[in-house]
Amino acid sequence: MAATDTFGELGLSIIGVGAHYPPYGLKPVEVEKLGAKHYPESPAMMKVLSINRYTGIDTRSSIGTSDHPLVNQKDAPTIAQLHKTFMCDGVPLAVEASKKAIAEARIDVSQITHVVATTCTDSANPGFDHYVVKQLGISHQVEKVLLHGVGCSGGLAILRTAANLALGHTARRKPARILCVALEVSTTMVRSEMDSINETQETRIGVCLFSDCGSAVVLSNGVGPQTAPPVYDLLGWDHSIIPNTEDNLGFDVHPNGWKVILTPQVPKLAAESMAPSFAKLVGSIPELPQEYRDAADFDWALHPGGATILTGAERALGISSQHLRASYTVYMGHGNSSSATIFSVMHTLRGKDMDNIAPEGRAKDFVVGCAFGPGISVEMCILKRNMGARRISGLITPPETDSEGSRSGGEEEVDWANADPLASIPESLASAEPHGTVSTGLPTDDNFINEALASVELD
Amino acid sequence: MAATDTFGELGLSIIGVGAHYPPYGLKPVEVEKLGAKHYPESPAMMKVLSINRYTGIDTRSSIGTSDHPLVNQKDAPTIAQLHKTFMCDGVPLAVEASKKAIAEARIDVSQITHVVATTCTDSANPGFDHYVVKQLGISHQVEKVLLHGVGCSGGLAILRTAANLALGHTARRKPARILCVALEVSTTMVRSEMDSINETQETRIGVCLFSDCGSAVVLSNGVGPQTAPPVYDLLGWDHSIIPNTEDNLGFDVHPNGWKVILTPQVPKLAAESMAPSFAKLVGSIPELPQEYRDAADFDWALHPGGATILTGAERALGISSQHLRASYTVYMGHGNSSSATIFSVMHTLRGKDMDNIAPEGRAKDFVVGCAFGPGISVEMCILKRNMGARRISGLITPPETDSEGSRSGGEEEVDWANADPLASIPESLASAEPHGTVSTGLPTDDNFINEALASVELD
Repeated sequence: MAATDTFGELGLSIIGVGAHYPPYGLKPVEVEKLGAKHYPESPAMMKVLSINRYTGIDTRSSIGTSDHPLVNQKDAPTIAQLHKTFMCDGVPLAVEASKKAIAEARIDVSQITHVVATTCTDSANPGFDHYVVKQLGISHQVEKVLLHGVGCSGGLAILRTAANLALGHTARRKPARILCVALEVSTTMVRSEMDSINETQETRIGVCLFSDCGSAVVLSNGVGPQTAPPVYDLLGWDHSIIPNTEDNLGFDVHPNGWKVILTPQVPKLAAESMAPSFAKLVGSIPELPQEYRDAADFDWALHPGGATILTGAERALGISSQHLRASYTVYMGHGNSSSATIFSVMHTLRGKDMDNIAPEGRAKDFVVGCAFGPGISVEMCILKRNMGARRISGLITPPETDSEGSRSGGEEEVDWANADPLASIPESLASAEPHGTVSTGLPTDDNFINEALASVELD
Repeated sequence: MAATDTFGELGLSIIGVGAHYPPYGLKPVEVEKLGAKHYPESPAMMKVLSINRYTGIDTRSSIGTSDHPLVNQKDAPTIAQLHKTFMCDGVPLAVEASKKAIAEARIDVSQITHVVATTCTDSANPGFDHYVVKQLGISHQVEKVLLHGVGCSGGLAILRTAANLALGHTARRKPARILCVALEVSTTMVRSEMDSINETQETRIGVCLFSDCGSAVVLSNGVGPQTAPPVYDLLGWDHSIIPNTEDNLGFDVHPNGWKVILTPQVPKLAAESMAPSFAKLVGSIPELPQEYRDAADFDWALHPGGATILTGAERALGISSQHLRASYTVYMGHGNSSSATIFSVMHTLRGKDMDNIAPEGRAKDFVVGCAFGPGISVEMCILKRNMGARRISGLITPPETDSEGSRSGGEEEVDWANADPLASIPESLASAEPHGTVSTGLPTDDNFINEALASVELD
């Protein structure tokens, strides 16, 4: 239905963005330690541990290290134990991210009208959103929506759902200030995935890619007083399912958490879907300036599911790694935090450091957000960036939170102001040709690694 | 925020309602058989089995009997096994219920714009809604929202969410025809709950109450051509959380499914919350006629969590069991199917057989929908009933579905046209005084049963 529709003036703006990572950054050696300690040598384990060294991820943000008791029991933790850890170590990440977004939005929690949340690494009634609301001190009644079943596409799925709910309030001439929250604690499932590698001898690469994060945005429908300038205006969105692909990508419940389903077809399916979704979406937003027509005219906030999703997008859309600079930065620095990643990418993209490595040195006024999830679903949106809303210090921030949204636990060591903006992007990516094949800088003598890397891809 | 707001002309109508129960109706003896076969005698097990005989439920609808292999393994089925059964035996219930609602709405599936779904007895990515959409033959892109974390309040929570989304389309002058689907397969967790009874010696009564059901409604925003008369107009809703009660009611993930958390305070907390929620909601709908002010002026579609929720509501609101006739009928005939129950109650209420046992023999034009869920959340809505939209035969119905929405598997034996409308309501309830204490017809010599029955209550 949405295909032929156009978006008019929606009045929707993201007025606050925050991401909060846990304090530990896992190097590849952490997975190797667990493998050596708990599992016999086997071909599949060796293969996964080799891939683990070449994912392009420097550190995966995590609520603990390989010494954490939860992942050093005789058996993999149960889903009930994972739930406890999610509540104890995960929920504070979502709360902190929310505080950052709320602070930037310059609203009081009493102004929040809805909370739209998602996770694919917990299941409970009431859901985790109940506790986020409570810990934020929201005591009035807010409309809560906790999305399930959307995996890595969850961040953009909650933004889309929030947009529709916000317009519902617009119809009733009521202000909507919707807190969108994504939270994932994935790294605690490392033992469950390693059990499966050991038992099935399948090359399961979730242990190499997934990480933990809480992230949030505040969406306004523009009704009522403006408290903060927009960070991004939300101009339109598209949600689609690639037909008959549900068996390629999944995350289904199991006594030890959720087990990843992932076929080697995913990167190709994802790449092929991007251009049609993009064309449909651009066609549905008449107010886009004439110079914003091709994919390369936009900056891209793509969910970095894995290295080949990023390089596949470059090839499919004719864009460069510079267009994807924020996706690469988040991927390399934190890994794939599933649904929580995309708001972190949107947050990272607005940094001045990012502008310096923009294509032709100029950040774009319009940004495409994109993520893939089980279904296979393709979530896409177009944002208009407000160049004034950068990640600067000194924004109104409650004393109990960090004064700069970008400076979460895992990022304390980065001096954004003085950092070499290119230092965090591998040379091969920073100099990539828009239409060329980007070198991954991988050794070529290990054929099985390259072969396996063709599937180093999660949505 | 919603407390002081009023609802204007929303243009929202439920234009189709359907419920579909699985073919088996479990008598109390089914639980006794499993107890005798798999567990030693113990005080807690005896107590639960005694309560099991006096819940007021005649049969609990289920996808299988006590002979089903899944509940006769050595150990309780794992959450992964439960997931497979949910997909295999549960999803068809949701599909059939959806077909009934769509047929009554006289729309083609191509007109469906959103699917808003819920379950608390499955977790997967993609969620079950993906497969319902596919099996309904919906090939165009619909906006999907799968709610999690809302337990037994899920049915009204998806209706509320759908209402807000529908208004979002109203704001964009787009038609919204939203399929709301609730699906629960609870009876497969009987062994897990009996394990807990055996191990903890707690009086866990979920095994006595819960049942299986798929149910659906189609919500229209009134934009675009009218295909069917409304069954109910949706005039307004209220969602609230009873502060600091989250530890009283829950359903948290476990290797063998989800474990019920339920304290004896729940019935009291629920009953106390109803009058304030009702007063707030009535005050927010100015177009209600003057003669609809008190709870007894309305009919009530209350989620029948347990017998004392129903009797507690009667006391708290000054209403009679006749006001709750559809809730009692569904409770006695099918049990508590968690989120899927409320649409079944709304469907049952419009039957001519129900009108005959209305207070003073006259069905009310306005109906209050109400359900409780973990949080503790209170979901309430006010519906205007269209007396023309009864459960009559001969509605446009696809050949593959039953021609009458009410005649699902578990109800085939009932001849609604000739049934004694009072036969299904116990004499004590059919003659209950509005303000009196309703006799439950229970033996009074077993004090421990009565004591335990004080907590025969799920949300």
